[in-house]
Amino acid sequence: MSTPTPPADPTGTSAAPSAAPESTSEQDFSDLRAMYINCTLKRSPELSHTEGIVDASAAIMMKHGVQVEVLRAVDHDIATGVQPDMTEHGWARDEWPRIMGDVLASDILVIAGPIWLGDNSSVTKRVIERLYSYSGMTNDQGQYLYYGRVAGAIITGNEDGIKHCSSNILYSLQHIGYTIPPQADCGWIGEAGPGPSYLDPGSGGPENEFTQRNTTFMTWNLMHLAKLLKDAGGFPAGGNDRGAWDAGARFDYENPEYR
Amino acid sequence: MSTPTPPADPTGTSAAPSAAPESTSEQDFSDLRAMYINCTLKRSPELSHTEGIVDASAAIMMKHGVQVEVLRAVDHDIATGVQPDMTEHGWARDEWPRIMGDVLASDILVIAGPIWLGDNSSVTKRVIERLYSYSGMTNDQGQYLYYGRVAGAIITGNEDGIKHCSSNILYSLQHIGYTIPPQADCGWIGEAGPGPSYLDPGSGGPENEFTQRNTTFMTWNLMHLAKLLKDAGGFPAGGNDRGAWDAGARFDYENPEYR
Amino acid sequence: MSTPTPPADPTGTSAAPSAAPESTSEQDFSDLRAMYINCTLKRSPELSHTEGIVDASAAIMMKHGVQVEVLRAVDHDIATGVQPDMTEHGWARDEWPRIMGDVLASDILVIAGPIWLGDNSSVTKRVIERLYSYSGMTNDQGQYLYYGRVAGAIITGNEDGIKHCSSNILYSLQHIGYTIPPQADCGWIGEAGPGPSYLDPGSGGPENEFTQRNTTFMTWNLMHLAKLLKDAGGFPAGGNDRGAWDAGARFDYENPEYR
Amino acid sequence: MSTPTPPADPTGTSAAPSAAPESTSEQDFSDLRAMYINCTLKRSPELSHTEGIVDASAAIMMKHGVQVEVLRAVDHDIATGVQPDMTEHGWARDEWPRIMGDVLASDILVIAGPIWLGDNSSVTKRVIERLYSYSGMTNDQGQYLYYGRVAGAIITGNEDGIKHCSSNILYSLQHIGYTIPPQADCGWIGEAGPGPSYLDPGSGGPENEFTQRNTTFMTWNLMHLAKLLKDAGGFPAGGNDRGAWDAGARFDYENPEYR
Repeated sequence: MSTPTPPADPTGTSAAPSAAPESTSEQDFSDLRAMYINCTLKRSPELSHTEGIVDASAAIMMKHGVQVEVLRAVDHDIATGVQPDMTEHGWARDEWPRIMGDVLASDILVIAGPIWLGDNSSVTKRVIERLYSYSGMTNDQGQYLYYGRVAGAIITGNEDGIKHCSSNILYSLQHIGYTIPPQADCGWIGEAGPGPSYLDPGSGGPENEFTQRNTTFMTWNLMHLAKLLKDAGGFPAGGNDRGAWDAGARFDYENPEYR
Repeated sequence: MSTPTPPADPTGTSAAPSAAPESTSEQDFSDLRAMYINCTLKRSPELSHTEGIVDASAAIMMKHGVQVEVLRAVDHDIATGVQPDMTEHGWARDEWPRIMGDVLASDILVIAGPIWLGDNSSVTKRVIERLYSYSGMTNDQGQYLYYGRVAGAIITGNEDGIKHCSSNILYSLQHIGYTIPPQADCGWIGEAGPGPSYLDPGSGGPENEFTQRNTTFMTWNLMHLAKLLKDAGGFPAGGNDRGAWDAGARFDYENPEYR
Repeated sequence: MSTPTPPADPTGTSAAPSAAPESTSEQDFSDLRAMYINCTLKRSPELSHTEGIVDASAAIMMKHGVQVEVLRAVDHDIATGVQPDMTEHGWARDEWPRIMGDVLASDILVIAGPIWLGDNSSVTKRVIERLYSYSGMTNDQGQYLYYGRVAGAIITGNEDGIKHCSSNILYSLQHIGYTIPPQADCGWIGEAGPGPSYLDPGSGGPENEFTQRNTTFMTWNLMHLAKLLKDAGGFPAGGNDRGAWDAGARFDYENPEYR
Repeated sequence: MSTPTPPADPTGTSAAPSAAPESTSEQDFSDLRAMYINCTLKRSPELSHTEGIVDASAAIMMKHGVQVEVLRAVDHDIATGVQPDMTEHGWARDEWPRIMGDVLASDILVIAGPIWLGDNSSVTKRVIERLYSYSGMTNDQGQYLYYGRVAGAIITGNEDGIKHCSSNILYSLQHIGYTIPPQADCGWIGEAGPGPSYLDPGSGGPENEFTQRNTTFMTWNLMHLAKLLKDAGGFPAGGNDRGAWDAGARFDYENPEYR
């Protein structure tokens, strides 16, 4: 259930609808780079419904100068495991280290994927495991490698599970160092039960205004926050330096007095 | 499983531990306000183990000038429902509208709570429902009311479930407009099975360096991001104005061409 | 996404649709008792959409002689906490111990509730906490109190989250001793985004064949399994006696040889 | 948090610890077959900590005559997708159809796996997707193929997430037709933060009585319920025949009267 319409405003901060500012062109996002990883189970050139929303979001970014890459994970030979390069651990091939270069070159990461049995796909989980495999590394501020970057999630299914799946993706990404802007997910599902998928004729998906709005707000919020962090020179340093912590710094942490 | 130590660095961005910068005093957070809502099931003055970590986090903030409020939700008569003021919907009492004033006066919100059967407590869920009851309102930028604020989560239990519980809290808060910094949760649990709780003698909780580190990093990241957003005058406007959307603005959203 | 239609049957066990056996009257379930706890946030006499599906399921049971009770939890003064009787822990009132008598008199328990922000309601969580508060007790076989009973879940919302919410309910109930039959949940949600609720005119909810089917199969499976366990004199004893375990029995458990 | 010790027994059904019945040999489970699928990310012969608990559970079953198979999924070439045989959908190899034969020959299925970032592994998700790919098929009663079988879950990690992971596995399995006995999961995690894994020297895992007890009870409950269903000739028919439903049978379902 969503967005109750409150009958009163005890806080005094609500406002009349503002005039529609269609011209948002003053913002310059051209120094940003974004990467969308589509975790569909289907290999190219099969149609991925998830890619429909990915494309809608990416189009907004590209109109504003963001350099965008879309990668379909299942088309690549990504090994199973939680080490940075699994070829050093017995796997014959592993494309992840190369993909990882693009992830780290991007200010914005969006994980997109389908819903199966109400949960994220095995491909989504593998991508998260491989992102995690680099999570022990730090940047030159001593922060984890992903600090200073922002993340979002796109989910499609024909039945049920956007919030469950997004929640897992966004939690995982903030856990390894990404910053999450407001309303950082979007998606589409149909009514309870089997039915058409997002890009199927008559699904109503592309015309769903709620999905359109969430896609738009997510996309803008990702750009805004990425820009803010980039202009700040990354996520602010201080109190989040793993190397310093390991060397004994405690950044004013003290156990409270009890007992 | 946590923080694998990667054997190699294909990206070239990892660094030697930096020197411990204990002096972080140059940052000024004295214009920030933080609120911790403790969602323990136990009413005062019963001991809340969760409050042990709340206090440790709040102490860091206070040392840096942040004005901090800690509220134990179960001590207050918060009505059940999803309307802003439930006294207008048949409930004799509802302290939430008053609490909400403090929430909106705060730049930082931390929801803290226990784990029961692996999940958040009923009090945690009620607090989230009541935060949600204001989620349809907008600020004078047309953004949802909570934009420009940051949020975190603190979880304690004696067995299992920090990530599951935090994930639900952080997802809920970003969904209604909060921004989530990196590593925005912390907590403590003991080994599988019943055992001492965080503040019980011999639990090992307060001495757990992992919990200490996560608490510290979460706290600093909340302060940094709140400061960044405050100095920016709130979350950047553009593409996230609900009033304008409803009035017809689409912020460059277009359905992609298919079929 | 749901129920792929497999193009082949490598196992040889699939079958042509069997003839419709409308006459199922030979089964006698008249010694069974069922309890539905509706965890809507709305107090009577407000309309609960969840109750629409509860009533459909209960009607099937009653037609087959099952004695059914439907309880709306929010109408009752159920205290917060995890002890059997919270009046012994500082609460002025607590209706749970009385409700618990009905729970224990029932062979079938169905927890029903709404979705808020993708998750179970605070009332659902409180009911689970109070069920849990009796989970340390054992029956005269040394099994936990809830052994020999079966459970299901009913979820409604207008957007997203049936599987997430059901999963939490069913997990919690099997954890404390209930047996879960196949396809033990059902529910209804509409397309992504705000929209009509189940009983709203034009929602399509009551006419949704998927919801009807899941409701029907869940209901029958609950009756069948409750009957099977009742006829067996409860869940079979042996290897699940908590008292005996505490007294030293290990029921053939041995640590495997390693190291 | 787990197993509160209730100070009182308002229900009158609690009992003194029964004498330890070590002799449970009267039960005959020799017509049962069980399959454990270990979803570790590590290929043989690397040590799987999860297998430590798998072996402990399997040993109990074998002592009682159950025929047991343990399969490590990552050692097999299981294709990605949700069709029964992915070689018909463009994949060069797919060992799943052969594995599926063993799944269907088993009365008991236990999915075992590790925790990564608080969630199930990508291998666990792939196995669930492939089980799901057969979920549209029915047996000769018109029931889904998995009816009449029982399932459990085993989870290991060094930090946090048993209940979250088990919940997803058990939910998925009941959704496709498995029956879930009481307390159908077990596992081991250590205190919050990185630390030794289950089979590491000094982990305390194998000696953890809570883990031992849950493993034992799960194992026995799986055997009991599998036996009960086997002796009943499968899950009882009536009201759960998909073919008959599709042919128009409604098994006494009627929409309740509203509006």
